[in-house]
Amino acid sequence: MISSNDQDPVVAFLGLGLISGSLAGALKASQWGAEIIAWGPRAPSLERGQALGLIDRFSLDLAQVMDEADLIVIGAPPVATAKLLPQVIAHAAQGKQPVVTDMASIKGAIVDAAQPFYPRFVPGHPIAGSEHSGVQAASSSLFQGREVVLTPLEGTEPAAIAAVEALWVAAGARVTQMSVADHDAALAASSHVPHMVAYALTAMLGSHALDPMKHGGGALRDMTRIAGSDPMMWRDIALTNRDAILAAMDAVSMEHDRLRTLIAEHDGVALAALFSECRGLRREHDAILNPILKSEESSA
Amino acid sequence: MISSNDQDPVVAFLGLGLISGSLAGALKASQWGAEIIAWGPRAPSLERGQALGLIDRFSLDLAQVMDEADLIVIGAPPVATAKLLPQVIAHAAQGKQPVVTDMASIKGAIVDAAQPFYPRFVPGHPIAGSEHSGVQAASSSLFQGREVVLTPLEGTEPAAIAAVEALWVAAGARVTQMSVADHDAALAASSHVPHMVAYALTAMLGSHALDPMKHGGGALRDMTRIAGSDPMMWRDIALTNRDAILAAMDAVSMEHDRLRTLIAEHDGVALAALFSECRGLRREHDAILNPILKSEESSA
Repeated sequence: MISSNDQDPVVAFLGLGLISGSLAGALKASQWGAEIIAWGPRAPSLERGQALGLIDRFSLDLAQVMDEADLIVIGAPPVATAKLLPQVIAHAAQGKQPVVTDMASIKGAIVDAAQPFYPRFVPGHPIAGSEHSGVQAASSSLFQGREVVLTPLEGTEPAAIAAVEALWVAAGARVTQMSVADHDAALAASSHVPHMVAYALTAMLGSHALDPMKHGGGALRDMTRIAGSDPMMWRDIALTNRDAILAAMDAVSMEHDRLRTLIAEHDGVALAALFSECRGLRREHDAILNPILKSEESSA
Repeated sequence: MISSNDQDPVVAFLGLGLISGSLAGALKASQWGAEIIAWGPRAPSLERGQALGLIDRFSLDLAQVMDEADLIVIGAPPVATAKLLPQVIAHAAQGKQPVVTDMASIKGAIVDAAQPFYPRFVPGHPIAGSEHSGVQAASSSLFQGREVVLTPLEGTEPAAIAAVEALWVAAGARVTQMSVADHDAALAASSHVPHMVAYALTAMLGSHALDPMKHGGGALRDMTRIAGSDPMMWRDIALTNRDAILAAMDAVSMEHDRLRTLIAEHDGVALAALFSECRGLRREHDAILNPILKSEESSA
């Protein structure tokens, strides 16, 4: 691990919420000897994080926290991360050159904002989350067996990538690498558009005269759960990964229209074939999707 | 309970699968003293049901099973139920006039098929199910706290309605009544179209170059689970409740298009308002939807 002296390395979280609090808690619970400190714009979340034993100490002074850090983890939604990054990178480059990483679920806008280029910044995205939010919902097991995607650029330092990878492995995650564009397209399809679909379905149910949600079973429980997610976070995601989301929404619309036509035309053979194909696709991915326990209430 | 003599009433299941097997098991586990018999077109499911202790005995002779019954429960998907009903009703009307009920998730096509009118036929629909199928997946707790909708017609006998209600209460369900048309419209929106949306989403993911399902988290787990449902059953449902499903699919498309426009136009204020409204709607219905445990794997 990166450490400028013989002491334990210092990991600094900028922002302490559900995801960053869960990572901090996982690091504290692991054998990874690191001091965990945090900065945030307001004291209450930080005090709660300390009371929960997720961090060792905190400060409201951003520069002071960054000065101490060997590894800086920005724990903020995409838009806030993009806003904070230039300041963090400028400070890091002038100081002892800590490794910097982030956890935003969109990488294109983050990489664009990370100016000037800093070779020790490693863009990252843990594919884990919750429709709940705030440090009080943090869980140190949130990343167990979950994928964390890193999207390093051509000039990113291998040692910095290795340091961020070690951080996530300590938290129980498995680390993969993708290009920025592939990450954003894949996540638009696997996470962002499923949320948009849940919103569209929920909005339809909400404007239906019979209040059909009242008669919902397990299908509706699952198909609307993520419509309970943080509205501001999802507004930001929708706008920040706009082009990839619109492309995947159009692809869903096309499939929905195709399905509508098959039903309208009473084409039982084609419907059975389509539904069988979907069942096959889902079962092929059961091993990835099903081990994610309901109790974790993950939604990323 | 209806009984033509002093002995325990005889409940006959026509067809033994996940739903009927679960109801049979729930009745056996309850204090409700009834003999549970079953008919099916082939022996293996019936033998399995008997071995699992869900039924007392079975026969492959439909007329013989119906002759013994005080209450006949048709345990079949919508199309098979509609096919079987005229024969069952004709036999029932000529014999000792047992109460007849069904469990199909669509009521319009069932009521249309139930000719000639038989006042002791009570159309029913337990809102519970699974993406699994077959009697081996039966669970006697499947209906605990779940809604069962009865859709009696104007001439349906109150005593017959009461008998079917008692059956479901013994299985732990709560019984409500709706009109046939309202049931089919509400269920199209709360169950059938959520399945169609899951199919459209899964089809999009399956044709995506990056195999985004590989990177799925909890959102995708939930939003695609029911795409693993029985393809033949869902083909039948799609065709049998076609008009109500098409109407609700169009309403979802409209909401999806509206959402697409807000994203394309970068309208953060309207997006936040829409997402907040959806969160409110979901939370309002949490008490109905969330007690449905994941372990039950319900999908109806």
